[in-house]
Amino acid sequence: MPNPTAAMLVIGDEILSGRTRDANAYHLAGELTSAGIDLHEIRVVPDVHDVIVGALNALRVAYTHVFTSGGIGPTHDDITADAVAAAFGVGIGVRDDARALLEASLARRGRTATADQLRMARIPDGATLIVNDLSGAPGFSMGNVHVMAGVPSIFVAMLATVLPTLEAGVPRLSREVRFDVGEGRIATPLRALAEAMPELSVGSYPFREGDTYGTTVVVRGADEALIDAAVAQLEKIRAEIG
Amino acid sequence: MPNPTAAMLVIGDEILSGRTRDANAYHLAGELTSAGIDLHEIRVVPDVHDVIVGALNALRVAYTHVFTSGGIGPTHDDITADAVAAAFGVGIGVRDDARALLEASLARRGRTATADQLRMARIPDGATLIVNDLSGAPGFSMGNVHVMAGVPSIFVAMLATVLPTLEAGVPRLSREVRFDVGEGRIATPLRALAEAMPELSVGSYPFREGDTYGTTVVVRGADEALIDAAVAQLEKIRAEIG
Repeated sequence: MPNPTAAMLVIGDEILSGRTRDANAYHLAGELTSAGIDLHEIRVVPDVHDVIVGALNALRVAYTHVFTSGGIGPTHDDITADAVAAAFGVGIGVRDDARALLEASLARRGRTATADQLRMARIPDGATLIVNDLSGAPGFSMGNVHVMAGVPSIFVAMLATVLPTLEAGVPRLSREVRFDVGEGRIATPLRALAEAMPELSVGSYPFREGDTYGTTVVVRGADEALIDAAVAQLEKIRAEIG
Repeated sequence: MPNPTAAMLVIGDEILSGRTRDANAYHLAGELTSAGIDLHEIRVVPDVHDVIVGALNALRVAYTHVFTSGGIGPTHDDITADAVAAAFGVGIGVRDDARALLEASLARRGRTATADQLRMARIPDGATLIVNDLSGAPGFSMGNVHVMAGVPSIFVAMLATVLPTLEAGVPRLSREVRFDVGEGRIATPLRALAEAMPELSVGSYPFREGDTYGTTVVVRGADEALIDAAVAQLEKIRAEIG
């Protein structure tokens, strides 16, 4: 059975303007790889309702799961929850369980919720909350769309809550072999290896360290014995180059 | 006149697998903002021909410019140039000027080009080369699609070559005001500010430093006087909070 598939939707003007370097996609990619869920696409879109709705509807029908980050805070530019409700054609309003979580978190700091903070308890009808220890305001899963915060520490906490609840696939294994020569020198034997082992993905990533042009070759797949055989072949190629 | 628009297409299994954290989108976003070109979308897709072609065709009709990174090396997994040719419906082959650049670069290291290295001189018919000092293998612009390397240092060099040749827009200015309170405390006056100055984009970005929950408010726009007025208003809000 093929692995579940996934896309990520990053919602945030601050990424597109170059103000902030996204961290959540990198974290998600690693976690999904470990869980055997294949991440096929990442999209970053601005804080624009119609654009978010369009991207949600394109991605949620194409992949098993969609993970979003950003836009679920209390301010006027936090419009993700409304966009998710619109994409699914459901209503949205303050929900008692989300409100209770939010109010309990604020109470621990001696505060009561303002009308703006209550916006964070607005949940699309039919969604499941993503409760987490770091943030009183929960994320939520609506169908196959998992809606999480943009603040990296809270994104990490929310993903840790939701990921174990999803059906895992077969984790893809990977091993790396380093060559101290450029890609051009090994392209021919690499091509032969990739053609001989079509079940594996053979990636070639050039790097530069000072004056050295090198190549990291990454072999990925589900079959450990096959990966071992590929690595042995790569080490043979490396020895022959000398 | 509205600013030119742009999308970025990152081509790379290594990003989607979590092996590599993309650096090029962050660099491009900052450079485009300075040039007054509005980056509307970033997509990361795998090394799969049909997926790359589909993304290129979706993005190149939607935006003034498309910038790609990755997949233009000499190995079997470098398939970007062929995907661009397919997206535009043109032929592709080794081009003399690209070959000359490549061979000159190799000659400086005492080498001649292998058949695999010559793959890097394959350029879609009608494209313009993106020559750069770092890499003998050029990128290229095909129509409104600018094809660059995935290695960050070479991506930076190629972008520095191509960006000054594109029509610039009005650089969006931005200023930040820091609040040492969470978003919930300032959401109401922020909303009022955003509604009073619809020409500006008012973004609210929570942060945490130790036990302090704070908020950075970013005001963006083209009109410096209006931004100054918004910043003055934000400083007034901050003073009132105490």
